[in-house]
Amino acid sequence: MNERRRALPTRDELRVWRNYIETAEVLRTRLAARLQSESSLSSGDYQVLLALSEAKLETLRSSELATLIGWDRSRLSHHLGRMEKRGLIRRTACADDVHGVDVAMTEIGSTAFRAGSIPHLRAVRELFVDALPPDSLAQVDTITTALRRHLDLDQES
Amino acid sequence: MNERRRALPTRDELRVWRNYIETAEVLRTRLAARLQSESSLSSGDYQVLLALSEAKLETLRSSELATLIGWDRSRLSHHLGRMEKRGLIRRTACADDVHGVDVAMTEIGSTAFRAGSIPHLRAVRELFVDALPPDSLAQVDTITTALRRHLDLDQES
Repeated sequence: MNERRRALPTRDELRVWRNYIETAEVLRTRLAARLQSESSLSSGDYQVLLALSEAKLETLRSSELATLIGWDRSRLSHHLGRMEKRGLIRRTACADDVHGVDVAMTEIGSTAFRAGSIPHLRAVRELFVDALPPDSLAQVDTITTALRRHLDLDQES
Repeated sequence: MNERRRALPTRDELRVWRNYIETAEVLRTRLAARLQSESSLSSGDYQVLLALSEAKLETLRSSELATLIGWDRSRLSHHLGRMEKRGLIRRTACADDVHGVDVAMTEIGSTAFRAGSIPHLRAVRELFVDALPPDSLAQVDTITTALRRHLDLDQES
């Protein structure tokens, strides 16, 4: 096992890896382009609104939001500033923490999110789900779960 | 089939999709962070040098390079400017096309690429290959190939 862990990937493993990571990147880019062309939202806007839509009272501490979507604080803060100007979200000082900021979905944000969701979900179906051979969804699930366990993701559950 | 294509993903399909795309993104980020900390190269530098290392005479037309790594021309041009200042690549006007630019790996680039490759490949093994259950590499390959065919990738072969 130690021997295996130390070794470099074989040519075949490396080919599978490169195809895997490149394919995911192409999917991300194509989905983002479709979202942008079929709604008023960028991929970043959608990630923020998706996280808020699933939060209690559609509100999250900005630090929690940063963790959930995997952005650093500075990138998130700049992006939230632009979203706030467009009325998509509202930031308020935290009631119970003078340094904290609560980020809440607005009516405008909620409407834009719902309008963007349908074409986005249709694109996920067309570009990803429809591509998978029958029964392979379960394989993708098993493989992804193994990767996530190895990477220590899914701590929140 | 048309009926299926029009429908939105099921809750289960959507869960698998979100885990898939998030996991790939986390892998990309972790690999990039390790590359940066274990070598003198950013993830972008590595992509450029990898493409050049596999090209004939370690040289590519900048337009070909942009297609190969999936960047737009403006992003590539800025990045190449920074890499050229560090001596990693060299740009020259194309012999047979007055508008073309050839991008070539330099000695410094080649040395930096080789030095960065070993820790990078070890990280690919540790973070990706070692996570996969036995025999699932072939499944990843089959699934990725189906996705790539659906997305019309692999046209170059």
